[in-house]
Amino acid sequence: MTNRLLKALSISHPIIQAPMAGGITTAELVIAVSEAGGLGMIGAGYLEAESTRRQIQEIKAGTNKPFGINLFVPSPYKEEKDVIHRAQLSLKPFLEKLGSLSGENAFNSYEQTLEIFLEQVKVIIEEQVPVCSFTFGMPSSDVIHFLKQAGTYTIGTATTLSEALAIEAAGMDAVVLQGSEAGGHRGHFLAGVEQSMIGLMALIPQTVDQVNIPVIAAGGIMDRRGVQAAQCLGAQAAQLGTAFLTCTESGANTLHKQAILEGQQEDKTTLTKAFSGKAARGIENDFIRNMRKVEQELPEFPIQNTLTKPIRSAAAQNNDRNMMSLWCGQNPNLAEPITAKQLVHKLVDEE
Amino acid sequence: MTNRLLKALSISHPIIQAPMAGGITTAELVIAVSEAGGLGMIGAGYLEAESTRRQIQEIKAGTNKPFGINLFVPSPYKEEKDVIHRAQLSLKPFLEKLGSLSGENAFNSYEQTLEIFLEQVKVIIEEQVPVCSFTFGMPSSDVIHFLKQAGTYTIGTATTLSEALAIEAAGMDAVVLQGSEAGGHRGHFLAGVEQSMIGLMALIPQTVDQVNIPVIAAGGIMDRRGVQAAQCLGAQAAQLGTAFLTCTESGANTLHKQAILEGQQEDKTTLTKAFSGKAARGIENDFIRNMRKVEQELPEFPIQNTLTKPIRSAAAQNNDRNMMSLWCGQNPNLAEPITAKQLVHKLVDEE
Repeated sequence: MTNRLLKALSISHPIIQAPMAGGITTAELVIAVSEAGGLGMIGAGYLEAESTRRQIQEIKAGTNKPFGINLFVPSPYKEEKDVIHRAQLSLKPFLEKLGSLSGENAFNSYEQTLEIFLEQVKVIIEEQVPVCSFTFGMPSSDVIHFLKQAGTYTIGTATTLSEALAIEAAGMDAVVLQGSEAGGHRGHFLAGVEQSMIGLMALIPQTVDQVNIPVIAAGGIMDRRGVQAAQCLGAQAAQLGTAFLTCTESGANTLHKQAILEGQQEDKTTLTKAFSGKAARGIENDFIRNMRKVEQELPEFPIQNTLTKPIRSAAAQNNDRNMMSLWCGQNPNLAEPITAKQLVHKLVDEE
Repeated sequence: MTNRLLKALSISHPIIQAPMAGGITTAELVIAVSEAGGLGMIGAGYLEAESTRRQIQEIKAGTNKPFGINLFVPSPYKEEKDVIHRAQLSLKPFLEKLGSLSGENAFNSYEQTLEIFLEQVKVIIEEQVPVCSFTFGMPSSDVIHFLKQAGTYTIGTATTLSEALAIEAAGMDAVVLQGSEAGGHRGHFLAGVEQSMIGLMALIPQTVDQVNIPVIAAGGIMDRRGVQAAQCLGAQAAQLGTAFLTCTESGANTLHKQAILEGQQEDKTTLTKAFSGKAARGIENDFIRNMRKVEQELPEFPIQNTLTKPIRSAAAQNNDRNMMSLWCGQNPNLAEPITAKQLVHKLVDEE
């Protein structure tokens, strides 16, 4: 099987390090993955334009190999005072427990979020980043057009066949299929969250049969067996998050790494909207359990994310993993505390 | 890789036809699968001892090849008058719409259900059925002991690593791993239903690393790509339900077959407890949608199953697929109306 994707990306191995947002994808991690022959990726979802540029330049200074970046596509949202007030009341006990002052929350408006997104796109074009992927929806046709014109390879994220078909129709170059196994935020944008929960074993073959652009499999893949299985099903590469999260170079909080590495239970991850207002898979803890009853009434993304930021920061400082977001896929048992280079080699070496 | 399972089962191909209960696994289907070199299986979950015996004898008359049978392990349940009454009220509009008299519902007690189960086990021992698998929990150590002594190969069904370890510890010979992709009833018995929803891509490798008995993968597998992917991940065989359901020899209702074969949407299946009181995956229809609001208050399995029986029967007679249970895995797009022999060959042929 010729691998169009590897050729187009100019990488040696069908391994993409998932662009995990929030400081996990340090320049060290991205450089190490790309140097090892995979594709390192910046999770730039929560960055502003200038920090995005800084990280891109840091990576360019560290490697000549291709790398990529991921952006969150903004969707319209409203700042609803009463919904926010109710959410603040439900979060108060956690802030008090952490000895943190609840303080004022400053929200970006949808228009501001969109402006930051477009500034990031401008930076990516100026810096000629080889690969740009998107989550939480599809960028406008203008954005796709300008990126492609600048030579950037564009990748969408789909959770269903319909979403993959929409990404192909929009003219993007490839599609990441996010299976229900995946850790972190769900990338659904046409399907509801329940309908987006399709396992890769079912999702990959039905999609590759109907979509002509290369398909990248993401979700629960942790070792060579998973990479090979994804290829059997028709994917041209595998994108791994949790497996890279516990690598030496990853910027994930030590408690986050420990929580994954200690796992001897396969059934400890769960979906929650409590941290950000958008469904994401992580290791269940007190915060998730206690917020369950109000979960359906929370403000939408990214409002709730802004509201919980002081809790997550204070929890990290207090070493309290019970109030941190511990994103994790469905296979933490196979995570290892190794270097990214070691991981890439383990993923592709022959027996 | 030596395949212990194929040797133990004396079958040629790593293909098991899932034991779908409720009249789908006709003797013709089971015989055709076993004759083609796979393992045909009777879904005996809803049968009584004598009908179980009749089907076994019919299959023995039609093939000398090995075949198997599946039983539902009964769990204690109670007949709660007020819960049942509320459920009857919520079902009344459907019965009226179908022009059916609501009539009286006769429930088997847990003790009667257990008695039927033990009579089935006795029949399986007397008839020397080569393989017996179990769903909805583990049989008692006595049942496992007597079956193994009679030379029957015993298989448990697990949805998590913990459940697979429990099945191994109980002394069963092999374990079916039911991924979240699977159609029909969930087989979880230690995990809650949410925690049982693990995709095969994550579930198989973490289980084969810790369990020594052979692992059989079930859920969303529809063609050779899925069989090979399951083997890459460490499974010794694949068990397919939906793919065999649309075969010529299957006893599934024609409307059920059509609903699967027409599917051009991958996101149309959903989990529901509305039909039986136990979570199961099927194609969403009016009954599932309308019952959603009372779903958490319904009587448990098999009480709710008894309550909805007149609805399902009348719906089948009226050709109304909106009130039938249309069990289906997450990959209906790959289903074909072919013979079981053709399907087995497609699943194992080299390119």
